[in-house]
Amino acid sequence: MNDIAKSLKPEECFITDEPYYEAVGSEIDIFLAAYKQKIPILLKGPTGCGKTRFMEHMAWRLKKALITVSCHDDLTASDLVGRFLISGGETKWIDGPLARSVRNGAICYLDEIVEARKDTTVVIHPLADDRRVLPMEKVGEVLEATDDFCLAISYNPGYQSVLKDLKQSTRQRFVALEFDYPSAELETRIIKTEADIDQSLAERLVKFAHMTRNLKGSGLEEGASTRLLVHAAKLISAGISPVDACHTSISQALTDDPEMLAAINELSSSLF
Amino acid sequence: MNDIAKSLKPEECFITDEPYYEAVGSEIDIFLAAYKQKIPILLKGPTGCGKTRFMEHMAWRLKKALITVSCHDDLTASDLVGRFLISGGETKWIDGPLARSVRNGAICYLDEIVEARKDTTVVIHPLADDRRVLPMEKVGEVLEATDDFCLAISYNPGYQSVLKDLKQSTRQRFVALEFDYPSAELETRIIKTEADIDQSLAERLVKFAHMTRNLKGSGLEEGASTRLLVHAAKLISAGISPVDACHTSISQALTDDPEMLAAINELSSSLF
Amino acid sequence: MNDIAKSLKPEECFITDEPYYEAVGSEIDIFLAAYKQKIPILLKGPTGCGKTRFMEHMAWRLKKALITVSCHDDLTASDLVGRFLISGGETKWIDGPLARSVRNGAICYLDEIVEARKDTTVVIHPLADDRRVLPMEKVGEVLEATDDFCLAISYNPGYQSVLKDLKQSTRQRFVALEFDYPSAELETRIIKTEADIDQSLAERLVKFAHMTRNLKGSGLEEGASTRLLVHAAKLISAGISPVDACHTSISQALTDDPEMLAAINELSSSLF
Amino acid sequence: MNDIAKSLKPEECFITDEPYYEAVGSEIDIFLAAYKQKIPILLKGPTGCGKTRFMEHMAWRLKKALITVSCHDDLTASDLVGRFLISGGETKWIDGPLARSVRNGAICYLDEIVEARKDTTVVIHPLADDRRVLPMEKVGEVLEATDDFCLAISYNPGYQSVLKDLKQSTRQRFVALEFDYPSAELETRIIKTEADIDQSLAERLVKFAHMTRNLKGSGLEEGASTRLLVHAAKLISAGISPVDACHTSISQALTDDPEMLAAINELSSSLF
Amino acid sequence: MNDIAKSLKPEECFITDEPYYEAVGSEIDIFLAAYKQKIPILLKGPTGCGKTRFMEHMAWRLKKALITVSCHDDLTASDLVGRFLISGGETKWIDGPLARSVRNGAICYLDEIVEARKDTTVVIHPLADDRRVLPMEKVGEVLEATDDFCLAISYNPGYQSVLKDLKQSTRQRFVALEFDYPSAELETRIIKTEADIDQSLAERLVKFAHMTRNLKGSGLEEGASTRLLVHAAKLISAGISPVDACHTSISQALTDDPEMLAAINELSSSLF
Amino acid sequence: MNDIAKSLKPEECFITDEPYYEAVGSEIDIFLAAYKQKIPILLKGPTGCGKTRFMEHMAWRLKKALITVSCHDDLTASDLVGRFLISGGETKWIDGPLARSVRNGAICYLDEIVEARKDTTVVIHPLADDRRVLPMEKVGEVLEATDDFCLAISYNPGYQSVLKDLKQSTRQRFVALEFDYPSAELETRIIKTEADIDQSLAERLVKFAHMTRNLKGSGLEEGASTRLLVHAAKLISAGISPVDACHTSISQALTDDPEMLAAINELSSSLF
Repeated sequence: MNDIAKSLKPEECFITDEPYYEAVGSEIDIFLAAYKQKIPILLKGPTGCGKTRFMEHMAWRLKKALITVSCHDDLTASDLVGRFLISGGETKWIDGPLARSVRNGAICYLDEIVEARKDTTVVIHPLADDRRVLPMEKVGEVLEATDDFCLAISYNPGYQSVLKDLKQSTRQRFVALEFDYPSAELETRIIKTEADIDQSLAERLVKFAHMTRNLKGSGLEEGASTRLLVHAAKLISAGISPVDACHTSISQALTDDPEMLAAINELSSSLF
Repeated sequence: MNDIAKSLKPEECFITDEPYYEAVGSEIDIFLAAYKQKIPILLKGPTGCGKTRFMEHMAWRLKKALITVSCHDDLTASDLVGRFLISGGETKWIDGPLARSVRNGAICYLDEIVEARKDTTVVIHPLADDRRVLPMEKVGEVLEATDDFCLAISYNPGYQSVLKDLKQSTRQRFVALEFDYPSAELETRIIKTEADIDQSLAERLVKFAHMTRNLKGSGLEEGASTRLLVHAAKLISAGISPVDACHTSISQALTDDPEMLAAINELSSSLF
Repeated sequence: MNDIAKSLKPEECFITDEPYYEAVGSEIDIFLAAYKQKIPILLKGPTGCGKTRFMEHMAWRLKKALITVSCHDDLTASDLVGRFLISGGETKWIDGPLARSVRNGAICYLDEIVEARKDTTVVIHPLADDRRVLPMEKVGEVLEATDDFCLAISYNPGYQSVLKDLKQSTRQRFVALEFDYPSAELETRIIKTEADIDQSLAERLVKFAHMTRNLKGSGLEEGASTRLLVHAAKLISAGISPVDACHTSISQALTDDPEMLAAINELSSSLF
Repeated sequence: MNDIAKSLKPEECFITDEPYYEAVGSEIDIFLAAYKQKIPILLKGPTGCGKTRFMEHMAWRLKKALITVSCHDDLTASDLVGRFLISGGETKWIDGPLARSVRNGAICYLDEIVEARKDTTVVIHPLADDRRVLPMEKVGEVLEATDDFCLAISYNPGYQSVLKDLKQSTRQRFVALEFDYPSAELETRIIKTEADIDQSLAERLVKFAHMTRNLKGSGLEEGASTRLLVHAAKLISAGISPVDACHTSISQALTDDPEMLAAINELSSSLF
Repeated sequence: MNDIAKSLKPEECFITDEPYYEAVGSEIDIFLAAYKQKIPILLKGPTGCGKTRFMEHMAWRLKKALITVSCHDDLTASDLVGRFLISGGETKWIDGPLARSVRNGAICYLDEIVEARKDTTVVIHPLADDRRVLPMEKVGEVLEATDDFCLAISYNPGYQSVLKDLKQSTRQRFVALEFDYPSAELETRIIKTEADIDQSLAERLVKFAHMTRNLKGSGLEEGASTRLLVHAAKLISAGISPVDACHTSISQALTDDPEMLAAINELSSSLF
Repeated sequence: MNDIAKSLKPEECFITDEPYYEAVGSEIDIFLAAYKQKIPILLKGPTGCGKTRFMEHMAWRLKKALITVSCHDDLTASDLVGRFLISGGETKWIDGPLARSVRNGAICYLDEIVEARKDTTVVIHPLADDRRVLPMEKVGEVLEATDDFCLAISYNPGYQSVLKDLKQSTRQRFVALEFDYPSAELETRIIKTEADIDQSLAERLVKFAHMTRNLKGSGLEEGASTRLLVHAAKLISAGISPVDACHTSISQALTDDPEMLAAINELSSSLF
């Protein structure tokens, strides 16, 4: 007995319920000031630490639609700006998510921008300085953004390589906010809010996360993100034992290395 | 006198007979808990050890259609999401296997995900966190998954290279289950069930497999999988001598190296 | 309550209000002489130092439309010259920004030309010598530029690599103007004009910028551009504290390196 | 006075006359057993040693059409599965050789599979295990093979490199048959059957072939195949002197190296 | 008040006024002899030394249209030969510049041929030997050149690398003419003719050019071409001071290196 | 007053006048024997030594059309076999030169086969063994060659690299003929026949060629081909002095190296 999957226009994706987000510093104020001054925003930070949630929160605050694009190796400027489709013997222009955001005064969030092909970083340049225009060369038009439009991008400095770096000519168009894992107290609160488990278990999960984060660089590429803790908590609340839940949703998610796995599992056994 | 090959819609591919699968640990419980909590699942393990069979078993249990995609170097996001086709002067949208799964609340299983192009791993990100949406940028729509939809991916950690690795930002969205060859007793039972041979022959085949698995790393890239044992058993039950059957379906399948072949054949001769 | 984004033809993008620009040397005279003698112009200099603003100023002076193309890795000659689109069963030619500029006697400004694919630098060769023609091979035509047409390109010598260099056969077709950051006095005036802050704060921002520029080569890829100072000033005038504003719009925009960030923040703390 | 070249549908390519093939070992029995048990077959061996002839022989025995695909660097999954063509304003699906084989219950023989692009090896995975299905993602269908369908692939282990290797996940789906040059006696018989020359000449050609095969690894990449001997024999029977025939159809075909050529020619001079 | 840019068919681009060209050696006689004997011509020499002007001169002498193609990395054989375009539901063949030259008996000049993709050098092979035909494979036709047709190519030996070299099988189809900078006396005359400046200034510009040419290899990739001298002369005659003119149109055009720039500017200061 | 360039169907390109060719060894007999026995032919040898002329001669002898394809880096199997074109809303198949040759029983000559992409060498495999069929996968047909069809390929062993080598599985399908420069006596006769010059001059040109051929490997990539001698002779007979003719059509065609050029010119000065 399946429901039918719902399909929406991106510009109609308003967030109606306040997304749970607790500010760590002045990131909310700075975002609002930059938005007011029409300066685009760059979010930096590791995976799963809350960048997407922050954007959802800001979209809810500003009452703007949030159009998110997960960038990747094959993402081209055309994917962002739009393309022609043949329909009834005519070519019809279909706005891409960026043009759609500019046209509708939405927030456009380009996640992991450095993964995209180079033309995508360049296509945002005229939007990201005081011109605030989107040249749509294929239709021979220039789209002028209204005051509502907001551009945000993210990237993870830990993953940067020489090949995939944000050029200075791109970086220097943005105000940059740095994100990190929340404090232990806040992270415990988040886990309890997201999955229905008790304080003590949540604290031990956070403790476990800190242990893995300390292993970053000594065998682990990355420590457990808040998201992984929520996964473990959810499995536990669905009846899986804490040790199995940590193993399957944290240890195995972090690494494939048998020795590293054994080490992490020992850490979790000492806690649960 | 040929039958006619039958053609089905992927979302109609329900598995009606229980696929033979014996659990090794708590993998069935964890899969069910993750499914209930809407967390996607990652299967890790060597080739031919039963990952596909496990998925067939879970699809049968959950009474969902199973849509499997074998990933490869040239698999793009469009292959998964869908594309436009020109028909009668109109462009018509054809859902790819991923959109098809989301729309019909099926299980989508992306086999060997790391083989695919990078954009495919990114296209599953919004489906693999609590948003559970599939942005279909080419049609300008966002598809929201129902509770029925389930996403599973697999990869073989033994094959990972620097170039083909699962990014942390992808890994950390999944609960991860590790698979390995079954125990000797269970493997013997599997062989007897799949091919009609006697207990003693099945035991000797398993013994032979263990010998080859011990050679992994010392000349063999991989040991004999359960599948290869079933091949040998089936040839034997079709009248081929055990030595020939082992040579053709195990030794020759594992390696091309003449010395290695001689060594393995000697092992099989000592057993049969 | 969104306004509707306005869309314009590129050749109608006349600049009606004088863009604020103060000449550093004889760059305005040389540009006018080269334009009169129909020699194309090459602007060299670091990001954010005012090349784009200079072009806007010259376009306003000459009362010509300014058509800017931000070049990138995937920009091809076709993107500049034009392409055929299918419409009503016919193919229809759409001029690219370069052909559009030649046809309408506009200023065509190719920003960061070396980023483009090699065919783009070659397509401008016949336009950039005394032939002043644009071969449009796909339509089998040669377009002769009128006296109004002006070609300008820019690049940042600091970013040049062996792979991305301007060939001598291209360079030697242009008169070259070098740009650099404005003098402290001028830069202070610019900041005060662009963001509404007082003299002392503007001076300290410029001082801070000079400190970061001195770090270029010793850990920083590039120093703070004038644009970054304007960002900081605008955040301050929107109520963010100077230290936070410098951190978020200058330090974080310049680097991801934790030690470098600490060093730069210390510099800003000593000033504000 | 030219005949007109005949054009056939691949699935109508039945072999009506028994292709001359003499079994070396139990390869015919194993092929038949594997076919009966629906296990796909992998042929290994050097060029020109009779793999293609063996497949023709088996197709004749089983009375199935044989559809051969010579794989190469640019062969994609679409080339095997099929593609859409525009016809009369409609897109029309054209089965590729693999879909054609599945649909018509033919033998599909993928020659030198490792030369193909990686997606082709993956597209055969679901056909090569007990699912025996061909997902045709572009038409949104899954094709179920009947019992008639047979899949065979070949490769030459001598040519393998790290880049072009058959993955274990592919290999371990096949029963593998190894081929080599026939025995001297059998090879002499083959030459006499294929070209009309006498016993003594055929024997000397085989002797010559053995000499070149011994040079493999010491200057020659590969020794003379049976096919080359047949070429020489056919030239001789058309009136060319044995020395010239060996030079032109064996020595020159094997190598370009002047010293190696001189050495091989000396060998042939000593024999003829 | 813009004029309208004029658009011409390439084969109608006859040069009506004698282009100013003074022969250095027997290059005009050899060109005429080669043309008479139907041997194609290869021009070698540095950028801006007059190769294009020579071709314009010869086209004017022979009263043939001159069709010039600036070659680049992405130039394919199709770009030269032609392609099909869809028009009114029909595909219509559009001759490329090479086919257009053959069909109309024009001079086809492929500038910097080695920059083009390899298929372009091969497509000219049958045109460049005594067959003098252009196979147009896409239309299934072979075009036979008339006696009027002339093929010329150019390249700059100074830029050759292993990757971008003219193959012997291409080179050996052409008669090759070497070009170099004109003598001091001739170059002075050229500058005076092209820009309206006096003898003494022209002489000093030429002196300056020689100084920079001597620096080739010791910091400069290339010395100042005649074209750059003309640029400087034109700026001077438009009112720019000689020092500024030399700086902007010669020094800055030659190099970005600050020390090299200082050195060159010192040279110019000593002269003007 | 231009003639109009004539355009022919490739299969109508019969050679009506006997092309001047003098056999060096038994190459004509071997070609005829191989043709009779339906074995394809491989021509090896340096550029400009007469391979193309030999093919023209054989085509004239056999009274078959000769369809030549100059292979290159971007030549694909589709270029050889054919492709679909849209015409009047229908897709229409256009035979490539290979299919055209098979269908019309012509001689197909693939010049410099190793330059082509790998799929082209594979597409000729089924045509180059005793199957003599051309699978046309895009139309779902297999074309059977008649006895008239003849396949010949060429390559220059001197240019072979690891990347561009003829695979053994390709080589071993062909009878191979080696070509070299003609003897001095024969080459003198060729030059006199092709260009109208006297015996003594022709002899000296041949002597000069031998000198350059001796320099191969010591600074010259390749010696002067017979074609270059014909060029020089033709320029001389058009009134250019022998020294100038040798310089422009031999020395400059062979090398760009100034010292090498000086050395070669000295050789020519000593002779003329």
